[in-house]
Order: sequence, then structure tokens, then C-alpha cells
Amino acid sequence: MQAYRALESRFARLAALQDAAGILGWDAQTLMPEGAAGPRADQLAVLKGLAHDILTGPETVDGLAAAEDEAAGLGPWEGANLREMRRAWIHASAVPRDLVEASSRAVSRAEMTWREARRTADFPLLAPDLAEVLRLQREIGAAKGAVLGLAPYDALLDGYDPGLRRARIDPLFADLRTWLPDLVARARAAQAADASPQALDGPFPVDLQRAIGLVLMEAAGFDFTRGRLDISLHPFCGGATDDVRITTRYDESDVTRALMGVLHETGHALYEQGRPAAFRQQPVGAARGMSLHESQSLIVEMQACRTREFAGYLAPLLARTFGRDGGAWSADNLHRLYTRVEPGFIRVDADEATYPAHILLRYEIETAMIAGDLGVPDLPGAFNDGMRDLLGLTVPDDRVGCLQDIHWPGGAWGYFPTYTLGALAAAQLFRAARADEPDLLPALGRGDFTPLRVWLRRHVHAQGSLLETDELLAAATGAPLGTEAFRAHLEARYAAP
Amino acid sequence: MQAYRALESRFARLAALQDAAGILGWDAQTLMPEGAAGPRADQLAVLKGLAHDILTGPETVDGLAAAEDEAAGLGPWEGANLREMRRAWIHASAVPRDLVEASSRAVSRAEMTWREARRTADFPLLAPDLAEVLRLQREIGAAKGAVLGLAPYDALLDGYDPGLRRARIDPLFADLRTWLPDLVARARAAQAADASPQALDGPFPVDLQRAIGLVLMEAAGFDFTRGRLDISLHPFCGGATDDVRITTRYDESDVTRALMGVLHETGHALYEQGRPAAFRQQPVGAARGMSLHESQSLIVEMQACRTREFAGYLAPLLARTFGRDGGAWSADNLHRLYTRVEPGFIRVDADEATYPAHILLRYEIETAMIAGDLGVPDLPGAFNDGMRDLLGLTVPDDRVGCLQDIHWPGGAWGYFPTYTLGALAAAQLFRAARADEPDLLPALGRGDFTPLRVWLRRHVHAQGSLLETDELLAAATGAPLGTEAFRAHLEARYAAP
Repeated sequence: MQAYRALESRFARLAALQDAAGILGWDAQTLMPEGAAGPRADQLAVLKGLAHDILTGPETVDGLAAAEDEAAGLGPWEGANLREMRRAWIHASAVPRDLVEASSRAVSRAEMTWREARRTADFPLLAPDLAEVLRLQREIGAAKGAVLGLAPYDALLDGYDPGLRRARIDPLFADLRTWLPDLVARARAAQAADASPQALDGPFPVDLQRAIGLVLMEAAGFDFTRGRLDISLHPFCGGATDDVRITTRYDESDVTRALMGVLHETGHALYEQGRPAAFRQQPVGAARGMSLHESQSLIVEMQACRTREFAGYLAPLLARTFGRDGGAWSADNLHRLYTRVEPGFIRVDADEATYPAHILLRYEIETAMIAGDLGVPDLPGAFNDGMRDLLGLTVPDDRVGCLQDIHWPGGAWGYFPTYTLGALAAAQLFRAARADEPDLLPALGRGDFTPLRVWLRRHVHAQGSLLETDELLAAATGAPLGTEAFRAHLEARYAAP
Repeated sequence: MQAYRALESRFARLAALQDAAGILGWDAQTLMPEGAAGPRADQLAVLKGLAHDILTGPETVDGLAAAEDEAAGLGPWEGANLREMRRAWIHASAVPRDLVEASSRAVSRAEMTWREARRTADFPLLAPDLAEVLRLQREIGAAKGAVLGLAPYDALLDGYDPGLRRARIDPLFADLRTWLPDLVARARAAQAADASPQALDGPFPVDLQRAIGLVLMEAAGFDFTRGRLDISLHPFCGGATDDVRITTRYDESDVTRALMGVLHETGHALYEQGRPAAFRQQPVGAARGMSLHESQSLIVEMQACRTREFAGYLAPLLARTFGRDGGAWSADNLHRLYTRVEPGFIRVDADEATYPAHILLRYEIETAMIAGDLGVPDLPGAFNDGMRDLLGLTVPDDRVGCLQDIHWPGGAWGYFPTYTLGALAAAQLFRAARADEPDLLPALGRGDFTPLRVWLRRHVHAQGSLLETDELLAAATGAPLGTEAFRAHLEARYAAP
């Protein structure tokens, strides 16, 4: 075990560096004064470079070989940890250091240009920088693919979700395409026949919104001795080991979004806080991948908190806190507000029924671009065509079109599909949890997340990266990832007679 | 210049690591949830170890030798930078790594024990841990001293204030001893004859105190695009390059202390923000040492902001903000409150006339302990004897006696004298600034710090570590560090007829 133990201590140092970067990254998005951006970028680049050195250095290479020779003596967690160490090493060592650095610089530049291009809806301004990011992503995909024996896009996918392949995604997404448009149409028809939800009348002071968010986090099981809630322009879940920091943003004219945002990030945070304590600084103790991570935010936000049961708990809490009453503050109305289906331009604002269309479009586009079948100049046209085909919308300008997301200029190619895979997994896990825990929904009606959280902790959070994604889902739900539970969920919630 | 340039880039990486640790340290004292303490300690230890590796690695050793060979071609800043690089290397490499780590562990343990020992006024509880810290400090002093050709205590001093020696301190402190007790006695007699200041009637809501603090920081010239004000239990100035973070704590029953605390830390911050832009990530761009750093906090807090002129600006601002009036809110009364001389047990609460006595005592004790002439068991007795001799006070228990400061358990031996040296330097610099800028005091009466700040920026902040402390003071004030300006300042403020 000697070689393995030495690797464990090496990877714990790596985790400490990544945790340091996690806090610095959180700080940059929440509190950092603007003039510190340059030095902060230097700090993060140095930490990233040192982490890369630790991960790819000769001691790691030799240690992995030696530990794999003695792997027969390892228990299941240690064995899986060694597998994940090797996986991390492959991803880090497959890409030459100058390519990593070139990509990092190109991304920094493109993200900066993107902010301006989006503000002014000026895609040609972004195009050259985006082309450079794409070129380097294709190189990275090719370099990783050569080592992993994968096509470039699959190699990129593997970086966000170990084991994920186009061959796994394509049939799932093809299936969604066959029934989702009809379901959305039926949901909208049903809503049109129903009473329109009444808007809640504001204003909603930020301090009260924050107070309710804290109540909901507490109810969901967020551990405030190991995490915080703060404010950022773009909500996220970040931070470090035993220091999970989620953010939201507040709009005094709308209380519904900040709260669901808090619940969404709380789902991510419960996963992070629930990772196996004995391996929290080791690769096997990390969350399994971005699809499962998204499933944990969506299981809280979409599956649990947009139920009629939860609206029965939340509505009086809101009414009491803001000192309001009347029909708009009823549980039924709040539930209608929270389950509205309406195609729109912006992915992050989409309801769960139309959201997959945004992802199908981006998946189609980015796979074609990585394959070299679609060039940067043709991106806006392809995007707008897709919005018309998939959502029936005519994009007025690129600001609400292909410039809306940071992912592509940000170098996150191969990330988008995990959002919808996460939605599928969330539905599948929630159905299994309800079957195992009959009190799950009634408990949510009392603001009690315990049955759900205990089930998730056991079947997902505490598993870390012990299993592959489909193995974990099969163990927890009886089947690998599929579309059926998601379809049944949408039918029941939106298109039930 | 090739070897020198390579060193510059190596030291910039080092600065980035130290900056990262600066933000993580700030976070730990302001926002971090308690459960994150363990992982945060790991993060800081890893960063510290990596910084040590960069500073002492063979590339630094070889680079320093090569750059020194070509030093004739360097300009004054580059030459001074090389000198400071060598100085940093000597301090880091003089101490064996296992001694650094043993000291770091002993300090962590002793700090933890100290919190409990102070709370319960139980010196024997701390004694064994403190003895271990002292033993390792003596070893560190000896190891550095062997390389630097210095006695152990001088070698420790040099780590906080390059070039500082006992031979420099002893005559200054001996001089203070001859006239300070009499001055304090005369100041107290004068105050006894005068009207007692009236207390300001609270409460003082935290948000208003914070708002005034921000106004004062702005007035003093704090650059909020490169810094922040937050809250911590123990106020400090920390953070990173172009990201200077000061903290304060608020007491709703007393407004005077938080404001002076903010002004004190703002003085430190102005030094950090004013370091030479071209060398901010290099050793020569660092603040010159702790004595000059303290001079910058004291020149703002004590020299500038406890003047009658500044009270004339501050008093109406306070009265307006809290909606009060009456004699207690007059500038005269506020000035009397802010210039009260009264011996007390607690160093950090001491006025500027009695403060040096606290330092003389600690200096005497810690030099004796490092020299091996005073043992840990005899510390409380020596401390209490000194408090009686120097301040005429009988220490009731060790909580307000030798357990009050974190410095000794914290491993900061050789640090205490810089507080009083800073007070001497502040008086000397302020007198020179007033002579150069006749509008300096009248401007402070209008809340305008510009003349003072511009003078300090030029003569102190922008100098970084180009000059040695006495060289800088001689260039700025015409003389190396002395007691005369401080004495004249105290005579004028407290004992004028």
C-alpha cells in the first residue's frame, strides 16, 4: 500500500490547491474589487500551473504505476480512488502544457470580448476570438482523444462527465425530440384553458428574500457550519471542501426567481457537503460528474420544490414574511406560477419542459463545430434556425441568441448536454426515492426534506465517484439513464387530463 | 539581464502565491464557516510549502548568483530588487524545513491553547506550549543568526524589519524611559485640571458607523476599486496586491473606537495601495518593514486624526449622521475624548502616551527570553513587575497581563518593538510633511487628506523597499529614526501649558 498511500498524500495536496482556487474564484465573483482582476488572474494561473505540475509530475507517473502493481491489495474505495487518479492524470497529461496555456489565454480574451459583444449584440466582434477558442478546443479534444482512443468531442465530454459519449447521448436526445414538442403543445393548451396565475405583488425587500432563502436552505439540510449564501451576478455553487458557497441574485420586483435559484444551488451544495468524509480530499470522493451534479440541483428545484405539496408549505411562508394575503398568495396560484410552460429565448430562464430544446440545439451546433462541419461565421444562422425549428421563436438579435451563454467563449465545449442529462437523472432518481420513501412528498408539504435528503445522501452524495454514472443510477433506480421517468414526470405535471 | 529577468518572473509567481494566501487568510478571519478551519489550514500549509520551494529551490539559488554577477548592468530599482531577493532567500533558506514545520505546528497548537488560557486566565495551561514555541524561536533565531552573522534576537528582528538591530533600538527605548513617565504624569495632571470629556450618547447603529467609516476612508484616499472594508473580531489590514482588505469591529454603544480603528487600518492600506506599480509583485515593491508600516497607520490615526483640526471636521459629521447635538458633540469635546491619557492594562487600548510603556516591557521580556535569561515560568511575574514599574498598575490576573497578546504563542518574537518605532517614525514623518505642506493641518480640518497623502505617497509608499528604513527617513525628514519628534509631538499635544 506504500505507493498508494504516497499518492493519496499527493492528491490531498492537489485538492488543497484546487480548494484554494475554489475560494479565490468564489471571491472573484462575489466580493473582489474590480481593480484586483489582474492579480487575481495571476494567482489562479499560478495555482493552476502548480496543480498541473503535481498531477503530471514524475512522482505521480511512477506512483501510479507502482500503485497499480499492488492494486490487488486495495479495498473497493481505494481501488476506485486509484482508477480516478489515473483518469485525472490522463486528462491532465494528454494536453501539452503550451496548449493548456494558449487555451487559457484565448478563453480569457474571448470571455472579455463576449461581455462587450453580448451587450451590443455584435457577433462579428466576438467571431475571431471565438474561432481561436474553438480551434484550441478541437486541438485539446484531439490530443485527449488520441490518448483515450476517442473522437475529439467524446474526449471533451469525458472531461465533464467521465464515461459520457455521443453514442450514449444521441439516442436519448433523439427520443426527446419525438415526444417533447407535442408534450409542450399539450401543456400550453392545458394552461390556456386554465386560469392564468396571478403575479405576486411586490416589492420584495432583499433582506426578507434572503431570510426566506436561509430558511429554505436550512430546511433542505444545508450545513451552515460548512457553507454560506452570498450574492453574485451569475448564481453558482462553488467554494471548497467543507466550505460550500452558493450565491443568488435578488430582484426586488420578483421573489420567485431568487428563491428557486437558492433551492437549485442548495441541491448542488447538498451533493458537495454530502461527499464521503473519509475521501473528501481524494478523487474518488469527488462528485461523479456534471450530469449527476445537475441532477442534484434539479431534483431539489424542479422535482421537489415545484410540486403542489411544496407550494403548500412555501405559499404561507411567503405571505407571512411579506405580510400579504389574497388569492395570489395561495398554494394553488404559487404552484401555477412555478409550473408555467412558455417557450422563450433565454436558456437559463426556461421552464423544465422547454429547457431540453435549448440543449438539443446547442448540442447539435457544438458537435458540428468540433467536427469541423460548422464554422464560426455560420453559428448565428444555425442557432436562429434551430430556435425556430425547436421552439417556434424568431430570434431578434444575437444577444438573446447565440451570444447569451458564456460556455462557448469560455471554452466549455461538451458541457451543455449535461444539463438535460441531469434533468433525466433527476426525474429517475426522484421517482425511485418516492417509491422507497412513501412519506417523501407529504414531508415536502411540511417543509421537511429529510426523507429526500437521507435517500440522496445514501444513493448519490456519499457514493462520491465510487461508481460510474450509469452504475450509480442502476444501483439507485434499477436502470441506467433513460428518458422514461422524465417523460412520465412531465406528463403528470403538465399534461395530465 | 537574462538571469535577473528570470528571477523577476520567479518572484512574481511567489508573490501570486503569497497573495492567494493573503486572500484566504482574510477570508478565514471574516467570512469562513467554522467547519472549514481544517481544510483551510491545509490549503495555507500547502501554499506556504510551495512558496518556500520556489524561494529556496535550485533555480533561485543559481539565478541569484548569476544575476549578482551581472548586477553592474542593473538600474537602481532592479539592483535593490536583487538585494531584496537575496534577503528573502537568506531568511527562507537559513532555516531547515523541518524546523519551519515544527515551528508552524507548535504555533498552531499554542495559539489554540492560548485562546482557552486567556479566557480562563490560566497561564500554566499555556506554559508548556509556549515553552515549545520559544524553544523553536530560539532555534530559528540561531539558525538565521548563523547565516546573517547576528545574535538570535537580531536575526528575528531582521525578519520583521530588515536591518533593525537591538543596538539601534536600545538607545531609543532608553531615551523614552528617561522622559516619558514624567510627560505622562504632566499630561494627566493637565487633564485633571481640565473639564472631563463628556461621553457620546449612543446607541450607534452599525450601518451608520460603517457609512461614516467609508466616508473617512474615501476622504483619506483609500481606493475602493482596489480594496474593501469588512468586519472581523480582530481588526487588521490584509488581502493581496491591488486588493487591500481592512477590517474593523463595531460596538453599538461606542462609536469612537471603530472609527479610529478604520482610520488606523486605512493608514496601513494607503501604504499597500501606494506601493510602486511597476514593482508591486517584486520584493523591492514591498513595504519596507513593520516599523514603517506601523508609522503609516499611526500617522493617519494618531498624528492626523487626533488633531483638533480633524476633530473640527469629524464632530459635525458624527452629529449629523446620528442626528444628535449638544456639547458632547462639539469638536472640542471630541478632541478631548480622542486625546485622553490614562494608563491601562491592555496594550491595544492604550493611548499614544502610555503605549510605549507596554512595548518597553515586552521588549525587555522577549529579549531576555530569547537570550535564555528568563524562563517561561517566570514570565507572569516579570510581566506584572514591569506593569507596576512602568505604568503603576497592579495586574489582577494574567488575562489582562501576559496572556493578552497573541504574539508570543503566535511565534512573532521580535515584532513588538516595531509598534513604538512606528510611533517615533510617524511623528518624525508628520513633522516633515507639515513643514513641506503648510496647508496640511488646515486641509485635515476640512476632511481633506490630499496634502498628507501626496507627501506620504512620494516619500514613503512609492519608495517600496528601495531604501533601508533609516535611509528613507533621512531622505524624507533629514534624519534617521529618533525620539525627538515624538517627544515634541507629545509635549505639544498633552503637556503644553
